[in-house]
Amino acid sequence: MPSDLQPPAARATVREVGLRDGLQSIATVVPTAHKIEWISAAYAAGQREIEVGSFVPARLLPQLADTAEVLAHAKNLPGLVASVLVPNIKGAERALEQGADLMIVPLSASRAHSLANLRKTPDEVVAEVARIRALRDASGRRTLIEGGVGTAFGCTLQGEVAESEVLRLMVALLDAGADRVSLADTVGFADPASVARLFEKARALVGDRLACAHFHDTRGMGLANVYAAWQAGITRFDACLAGIGGCPHAPGASGNVTTEDLVFMLERMGVATGIDVTALLALRQRVAGWLSGETLHGTLWQAGLPQNAAPAALRLAATA
Amino acid sequence: MPSDLQPPAARATVREVGLRDGLQSIATVVPTAHKIEWISAAYAAGQREIEVGSFVPARLLPQLADTAEVLAHAKNLPGLVASVLVPNIKGAERALEQGADLMIVPLSASRAHSLANLRKTPDEVVAEVARIRALRDASGRRTLIEGGVGTAFGCTLQGEVAESEVLRLMVALLDAGADRVSLADTVGFADPASVARLFEKARALVGDRLACAHFHDTRGMGLANVYAAWQAGITRFDACLAGIGGCPHAPGASGNVTTEDLVFMLERMGVATGIDVTALLALRQRVAGWLSGETLHGTLWQAGLPQNAAPAALRLAATA
Repeated sequence: MPSDLQPPAARATVREVGLRDGLQSIATVVPTAHKIEWISAAYAAGQREIEVGSFVPARLLPQLADTAEVLAHAKNLPGLVASVLVPNIKGAERALEQGADLMIVPLSASRAHSLANLRKTPDEVVAEVARIRALRDASGRRTLIEGGVGTAFGCTLQGEVAESEVLRLMVALLDAGADRVSLADTVGFADPASVARLFEKARALVGDRLACAHFHDTRGMGLANVYAAWQAGITRFDACLAGIGGCPHAPGASGNVTTEDLVFMLERMGVATGIDVTALLALRQRVAGWLSGETLHGTLWQAGLPQNAAPAALRLAATA
Repeated sequence: MPSDLQPPAARATVREVGLRDGLQSIATVVPTAHKIEWISAAYAAGQREIEVGSFVPARLLPQLADTAEVLAHAKNLPGLVASVLVPNIKGAERALEQGADLMIVPLSASRAHSLANLRKTPDEVVAEVARIRALRDASGRRTLIEGGVGTAFGCTLQGEVAESEVLRLMVALLDAGADRVSLADTVGFADPASVARLFEKARALVGDRLACAHFHDTRGMGLANVYAAWQAGITRFDACLAGIGGCPHAPGASGNVTTEDLVFMLERMGVATGIDVTALLALRQRVAGWLSGETLHGTLWQAGLPQNAAPAALRLAATA
């Protein structure tokens, strides 16, 4: 951490993305009622930001076909920021109609990955964000727009993705009208040193408009990368309960950073999340029941909370 | 990282402790021939520091009863630093007789843990180190003495362990004649913030005589803790191939930091280890065959090296 930065924050937000990034990657289709139960329990545990689904055609992602219904439930929970992923202006139209609090527009900094997954070049996605911004402004809705820059640390198709290109696209998204941006290690290539380097440069360019970090735990570095980003001033992190999500290129390998492990690490570090980790562990058990047969991840559920733990963890247990 | 410290080092040593800390915690007794094969392959992969066993009574740890024979093999490998754990002066006598390069004397900063596991108070262990030092000096041998301060981040029996007590015992070990010391999170209670705090204080007190960090991955923070210690100036880390070792208090939970994952992270960060991670992955597969039925850990063996990876990882693959 360069000495000219502020000391890292004492509070952080863990955004649950299991209902979108997690569920879209696994075969099991979770019934709407269970998704609603998940959101209610996560809210009761203290989570205040949840990505509830994605407005993509149901034939592409049948697991998320009920996003409008799930979003309608989430909107009933006071103070919950309910976000959805929207890949294009059609998705944005639905997000605005349904009154999402936040829409996340994915961009892949890897041109090869962008063409393969989004069928657009990165700059065509930037142009789409400009159209989405115009649509939002015309709608009178207050739905925020977050541009999510994926494959920010490399790409399985293209290999290296230049830092300068990641930073250029991040700034271009803001210039096109995104309210804020995030950086994602879509395929698990990041390490703490590359995270420190890129996030420090990105923060120097756009400050707090860089609003979130999204890491995968593919090669065991998820929490180390969170720590490096937190040192660089990031205070919002995506995570999936039970680490669901997987890695499409390595069957059985870990996917997203595990929510309950991340909350435990932050609380243990003295960084308040407002989330009761004991309640999360109970929710994990319920979700694991719905996902029987799927590969789950995480360590805390197995190791348990520390026995005779130091004060920080004792406080966690006491709030259960 | 406080701005008055040097930038973290560009080289680090990964010390293999799987043959001692790993094997002592699992039921399978690995035959001597396999241990010798393991050491030779680890050496061929570039590992230059290996803890080969423990001089404790064979009835207590039958898995390590062949330590003298395994050490004799290790001593044939030029430039390999072969260490053994010695719990007391009897063990030290054997380590000196057999010509170990380094003997590691464990001390538990938790009084409760010390009494339960070592049947001595921490200060009685310090006194034993003074006797071991006198014995070493009288022997004419050059075997180094490392005092390993365990439960440095808390204890399942006692709960909190005061930082001041950890630091006091660390200095006392050096004053008693240890050539160097290490700090160990024996039960997986550390987090990156507590690691940064304790290692910075410890380094300020004793500098490079704090020679190693030993972390467990019990709650998924092993690599994050390594990163925090590396930022504080530590350049030697203990690890176990395939993450063997387990946690005695949580069956199935992860044990030590996984060697191959740690080497990959460091190399990816641009920190040279001298170790060929592809060769380690091949060795892991062989060791996994010997440990059939045991719970193994780690992520890299499953996710694989990155495809189309960035330059650092490409170099790793090219050395295979």
